[in-house]
Amino acid sequence: MENIDGLSPKEIRALIRKGTWDKPTAGLALGYAQANLVILPERYAFDFLLFCQRNPKPCPLLEVLEPGSCLTTFLASGADIRTDLPLYRIFKRGKLEATVEEIKDLWQEDFVSFLLGCSFSFEEALLRAKIPVRHIEEKKNVPMYITNIPCKAAGVFHGPMVTTMRPIPQEKVIQAVQITSRYASVHGSPVHIGDPSAIGIKNLELPDFGDPVSIGKNEVPVFWACGVTPQAVIMEAKPDLCITHVPGYMFITEILNEELAVF
Amino acid sequence: MENIDGLSPKEIRALIRKGTWDKPTAGLALGYAQANLVILPERYAFDFLLFCQRNPKPCPLLEVLEPGSCLTTFLASGADIRTDLPLYRIFKRGKLEATVEEIKDLWQEDFVSFLLGCSFSFEEALLRAKIPVRHIEEKKNVPMYITNIPCKAAGVFHGPMVTTMRPIPQEKVIQAVQITSRYASVHGSPVHIGDPSAIGIKNLELPDFGDPVSIGKNEVPVFWACGVTPQAVIMEAKPDLCITHVPGYMFITEILNEELAVF
Repeated sequence: MENIDGLSPKEIRALIRKGTWDKPTAGLALGYAQANLVILPERYAFDFLLFCQRNPKPCPLLEVLEPGSCLTTFLASGADIRTDLPLYRIFKRGKLEATVEEIKDLWQEDFVSFLLGCSFSFEEALLRAKIPVRHIEEKKNVPMYITNIPCKAAGVFHGPMVTTMRPIPQEKVIQAVQITSRYASVHGSPVHIGDPSAIGIKNLELPDFGDPVSIGKNEVPVFWACGVTPQAVIMEAKPDLCITHVPGYMFITEILNEELAVF
Repeated sequence: MENIDGLSPKEIRALIRKGTWDKPTAGLALGYAQANLVILPERYAFDFLLFCQRNPKPCPLLEVLEPGSCLTTFLASGADIRTDLPLYRIFKRGKLEATVEEIKDLWQEDFVSFLLGCSFSFEEALLRAKIPVRHIEEKKNVPMYITNIPCKAAGVFHGPMVTTMRPIPQEKVIQAVQITSRYASVHGSPVHIGDPSAIGIKNLELPDFGDPVSIGKNEVPVFWACGVTPQAVIMEAKPDLCITHVPGYMFITEILNEELAVF
C-alpha cells in the first residue's frame, strides 16, 4: 500500500474505511488529535454524559453525536464513526463479545456516540519541550494503574479512576504540569505527583494495563487521568450493549492538538 | 434582621430558606461562587446537557443533579435548590407564568437541575488586579447583547449567544484575557475584543438586557459569553415547563472562586 506518512486525516480515514489500514493509529497524521469512542443506546446516554461532565479529567468529551447520528460535525466534517476507525469492540452486559472492522450492520437508530480526548495530544507537547515520554522511548504501551481515587458516580456509572504514569525528571515536573494544564480537553494536568501508594497503587512494576517502564534515579512518577477509565466504568455498569474502539485504534480528527490548547 | 455581611454561604442560604432574605445576592458571601439555576423535566435533560457540553462558554456547568434530586452535593453539602434561592421563575411553553419564593409544591420526580457558573466570580478577579468593572463602578446591571454568533444546537435547543460587555482600558485588555482565561467554569476568556458590529451588535448604547455603561476614550469593549444565553435558548425551545432563578437572585455555593481557577 501507499506510504501513509504525510497523508491527511481525511485520506487516512478513507484508507481505514476501505479496510486498507487495520493497524494502530499512533504516529499517524502527526499534529492532529485522536479520539476514543464509546457508543451506547440512548437509554444510557444521559447517565454517561453526566458521568463525563462530573469527571472531565478521565472523560474529556470532544464531541457527542445526536442520538442516531453516525456522522461527526465538529471533529471532522462528515466522518462516519461506523467505518472510519480500524477496529471496534462489541460488549454485551459488560462482556467482550466480538472485535470487528466496521459496525454498519450493527448500527441502531437509538445509538449515541461519544468521542473523548486522548493523551497522544499532550505527549506531543511534552516531547516538543524536550520532556521525555518513557513508554515512547522504550516502544511500549503506556503503563496504566487502577487507583483508589473514586470517580463521581452518575446514574448507573461509577468506579475508580484509572491513571497513566510517566516518569519525569525532577527538574521538569513543574513544566510538565504547566504544559499538560493547557490541554484540559485531553486529560489536562496530572492528578498526582510522587508516592504511588497515596493513590492506592502498590507496585509500579505491575501495571493493571499496558507495560511497566523504567524509572531513573532522579525521576518522579507523575500520574494523569486515563481514557481507559470510561471503558472500565462502562464494563462495571454492564449496559446491555456498548461499542468502543479497540485501545490504540483511534478516531483520527481534523483538529490540531494546538487547537485544543485553549482555556 | 441581622447584618448579612460576613455570614457564611450556609448561613445566608438558611436565611433565604426561611424567607428572611428576598433581595439580589450580588455582594453576599464575597469570595464564594454563585450559580445560575435551570430546572427541566427529564425528557429535555439529555438535549440540554448536550447543549451545555457543546457550548461551555455561555453554559459552564458547575453541577447537574441526578433526576429527581433537589439536594446539591458538589457545590454545597445538602443545599435544597427548591428553597435556597431567593426567587424563582416558572416558564410554561417558553412564557413566564409566575415568580415565586420557593418551589417545594411544584417539585416533580422527573426534574433535572442544572447549576451554571456566573461572571461574578471572574469580576472579583478582575477587580483584584485593578482592572475596572464599569457596571459595578456605576452601580448598574451589566449590559448584555444578543450577538450573531450561533450556539451549537443540540436536540431542541438552539439560538444565538448572548454576551456581556465590559469596557477595558487598552493597556489592560491582554491582562483581562489572561485573568478570565483562568476561570473556564465561569464563562472563561472573552469571545470577542473590539468592534461590536463584527459580532452583530449595532449599538452599544442599546443593550438587549441590562443597562448601558459609559466607555472611556482609551477603552475597548470586550465581550464575554453570558449566562443569559441558556435562558434565552430555553425560552426559544419552549419546553412544557422550565424553572429558573430570577437573574441576580443566585444560588450561593460553598466553592471559593479561587477553587474554580484551575485548568
